[in-house]
Amino acid sequence: MGANAYEIGQNNDFSVEVYGVAAISMVDYGKLAGKQGPVLENESRIGFRAGKAMTDNIEVFMQIEGGYVDNIDWAHGGVAGGTLGQRDTFIGLKGDWGKVRFGRVLTPMYELIDWPYANPGLGASWDWGGDVAYYYDRQSNTVRYDSPSLGGLTFALAAGRDDDSSNAKSTSGSATKDSYYFGGNVNYTIADMVTLHGGFETADKFAGNDVDTFGYLLGFEASLPAGFGLAGAFKSGESKDNVTKIKSTQDSYSVIGQYWAGSLGFKLGYTANLEHEVGGVKVKDMEDNIVSGQVMYVVNGFVPYLRVAERDLDGGSKKDTVVRVGLEYGF
Amino acid sequence: MGANAYEIGQNNDFSVEVYGVAAISMVDYGKLAGKQGPVLENESRIGFRAGKAMTDNIEVFMQIEGGYVDNIDWAHGGVAGGTLGQRDTFIGLKGDWGKVRFGRVLTPMYELIDWPYANPGLGASWDWGGDVAYYYDRQSNTVRYDSPSLGGLTFALAAGRDDDSSNAKSTSGSATKDSYYFGGNVNYTIADMVTLHGGFETADKFAGNDVDTFGYLLGFEASLPAGFGLAGAFKSGESKDNVTKIKSTQDSYSVIGQYWAGSLGFKLGYTANLEHEVGGVKVKDMEDNIVSGQVMYVVNGFVPYLRVAERDLDGGSKKDTVVRVGLEYGF
Amino acid sequence: MGANAYEIGQNNDFSVEVYGVAAISMVDYGKLAGKQGPVLENESRIGFRAGKAMTDNIEVFMQIEGGYVDNIDWAHGGVAGGTLGQRDTFIGLKGDWGKVRFGRVLTPMYELIDWPYANPGLGASWDWGGDVAYYYDRQSNTVRYDSPSLGGLTFALAAGRDDDSSNAKSTSGSATKDSYYFGGNVNYTIADMVTLHGGFETADKFAGNDVDTFGYLLGFEASLPAGFGLAGAFKSGESKDNVTKIKSTQDSYSVIGQYWAGSLGFKLGYTANLEHEVGGVKVKDMEDNIVSGQVMYVVNGFVPYLRVAERDLDGGSKKDTVVRVGLEYGF
Repeated sequence: MGANAYEIGQNNDFSVEVYGVAAISMVDYGKLAGKQGPVLENESRIGFRAGKAMTDNIEVFMQIEGGYVDNIDWAHGGVAGGTLGQRDTFIGLKGDWGKVRFGRVLTPMYELIDWPYANPGLGASWDWGGDVAYYYDRQSNTVRYDSPSLGGLTFALAAGRDDDSSNAKSTSGSATKDSYYFGGNVNYTIADMVTLHGGFETADKFAGNDVDTFGYLLGFEASLPAGFGLAGAFKSGESKDNVTKIKSTQDSYSVIGQYWAGSLGFKLGYTANLEHEVGGVKVKDMEDNIVSGQVMYVVNGFVPYLRVAERDLDGGSKKDTVVRVGLEYGF
Repeated sequence: MGANAYEIGQNNDFSVEVYGVAAISMVDYGKLAGKQGPVLENESRIGFRAGKAMTDNIEVFMQIEGGYVDNIDWAHGGVAGGTLGQRDTFIGLKGDWGKVRFGRVLTPMYELIDWPYANPGLGASWDWGGDVAYYYDRQSNTVRYDSPSLGGLTFALAAGRDDDSSNAKSTSGSATKDSYYFGGNVNYTIADMVTLHGGFETADKFAGNDVDTFGYLLGFEASLPAGFGLAGAFKSGESKDNVTKIKSTQDSYSVIGQYWAGSLGFKLGYTANLEHEVGGVKVKDMEDNIVSGQVMYVVNGFVPYLRVAERDLDGGSKKDTVVRVGLEYGF
Repeated sequence: MGANAYEIGQNNDFSVEVYGVAAISMVDYGKLAGKQGPVLENESRIGFRAGKAMTDNIEVFMQIEGGYVDNIDWAHGGVAGGTLGQRDTFIGLKGDWGKVRFGRVLTPMYELIDWPYANPGLGASWDWGGDVAYYYDRQSNTVRYDSPSLGGLTFALAAGRDDDSSNAKSTSGSATKDSYYFGGNVNYTIADMVTLHGGFETADKFAGNDVDTFGYLLGFEASLPAGFGLAGAFKSGESKDNVTKIKSTQDSYSVIGQYWAGSLGFKLGYTANLEHEVGGVKVKDMEDNIVSGQVMYVVNGFVPYLRVAERDLDGGSKKDTVVRVGLEYGF
């Protein structure tokens, strides 16, 4: 209407970046997968970023990222994975004061769980194999702040909402007022050699259920001489039923060693979920552990790898060998 | 086969444009939303355009646009919003004779309803809050012609089809022969100061139901001195049941004032759905009105805004305050 | 952790290509489509490619392609078509030794069925109108090798898996160990005038059902003098029930002539599904045939076309005329 009238989509001094990850692997999940046999998993995805400076010290940025292109995403009610918005999708502001993002992002604690402590192939126990649900992974309705590096120290804080436990549980529209979470992480690098990680996450009505949860993680990464590296983390969580007041608890740890001989790398990881207690009493056959080894080779930005994992889940009742060979690269 | 053989995908003198809108807001829908509480809404979307000249006076263009990246789109049977093709998605031809588009586009009348008469925050009454359904919004199976500017006058005409009333109602494949619509708009700008808008839309078996509908809109926008602006529109619609022959009617209006002091803008809007009559008899408690104010600030192409709307729906039985703070930009 | 540590998404010497096909048509499927009437079909789609050299003789490439932007894809459980990953989506390696792709690709035999033998408008009989299911089209969980040109000869081999017969049948995760297929094609061009095509495909537990299948195709394309061209193919398939041991068989053929007068092209095609036999006994009213003509005009890379097909399906019990006018271009 007036000279200042503004219409969305008319200004074009923004640049759009198309990015993605190409990730294909052939995996045999072993006996536990029943008649499935070896399958190709295409975890490739496409994303878009766009932004520019708003003021001298505020840059606006946004990201929209699709899911894995070949997976049905049951959490979204069976929608095929390749829908935009399934992975980290947000709008943010950043400056030398740090960055804040609004939307769908990793929680600060899960970010640590996922990296560096789940690779190679420990996730089935360490990430999502436990018996107490006390952390989200990627969560909508989240506001997350990440600090700049303060002399080797960085930290992140996030608060978010969840919804009822319907299939559409990751979308913003169906949030429930009573369900929210708060979490953070802190990372401190000493002499470029050792990084310490800490994280926590606490929730009311976790995932829309009538339970309150709390968990924390402590870990380290060390870059050792002669191409060696070592990382380890411990996490512990509890979930309290708001009706029965009974607490459910479990501790877990993960240890990963690696060795690089030039472009050739080896990783060996071990993880375990320890005793699962409900009301202070140990539940039988809940322990899990995985030992997994990986050989990889960096060649011109590509990392082909071979991974073999021995899984021993649910107190030894589910033993299996999982073999995966794959290739991935970011673009 | 021959020298003239043609295969799709082999010619690359087309350029592809990736565009989009980033739009995040935090909104509290108030008491009416029950236990929902404040939520983050990410209405960002990604689109693609490609085209080039076919002849001297025909340029071919196409657009594919995805839906809001965090919304479940129930109209598509629960599909997550970020699927390509949910918003305006078409192939068109244009020249100095105007443009024609084939596919999924806004109807000419709804285009006016949505802009400039629904902003700020009047949609819950003005767009989709009425009691008589007599216009589509974005509709597949549509052919739409838009004229070039003819001395300040432009007009648009569209005809389209609809399908049965299944969940998949917006896709082309399930059209029903008996359900179609026809609509148009006309816009006339006088002395760069005042623009008059008119629109109409009529349908047989609207939305697959056995009703015939008709509606029209009359409105104006005026750019006043000293940064002021004013806009107002009246619309009226009816729906006739083909079996009972009973008519259902309702009128609505919307008035919006704005004022810009440099980069700082204010908007104040008021809209009302008036008496809803069925068979000439007023139905009780159907009136709606919303008064909504918005403060916004244009900074380097961004428009952060704060909006507060007082909603008074269904004859006063649903009163609520909706607060939204957001940021959006096109790229 | 160490100096060689690698994180996905950090290296950016890859270029990403956005490509696509714009394809709109208005089609009337005739009486057989019941009350549908003429509809607009938007078969446009968007894809992404990214890759670069890994070694001197291995280039890594990937492709992610979405489905038709306006179609509900029932094979994916009702997901809207415009989801990334529905069409050919893979990661591959190539060099002067050929190329190998892992993921979701056309089977070698179906690639021939679809082109050049299904155009113009023969698919409803030739592609998917037969009574014996003995080939896939686009299949996940596939490894496919394509040879380089060896003096005019090229060949392709593919092996893949299928899953149970749930709705989610095209995704990798639900593969069934017992269901796999193997197929190939060979193409030989003589004196730039004639190309011979051969293909075969065999499967155990085809599409998750307890049947074993086998089929083959033989065909040719000839570029004749004065703008004429001719193509023809014969295919034959069988499906054996593993329980009853009864065989189901059917043969089909397709013949297409074309003529180009400068930019103006004509195509005339005829296809038929012949007798359908089960256990050696002919099943009544199973024959199909289509005769279809197309006029098209190549103008600056665009190909507007008009197509009229006479369909005579199921032994004459389903006769209809299908008319389509459309425009498509790759970008």
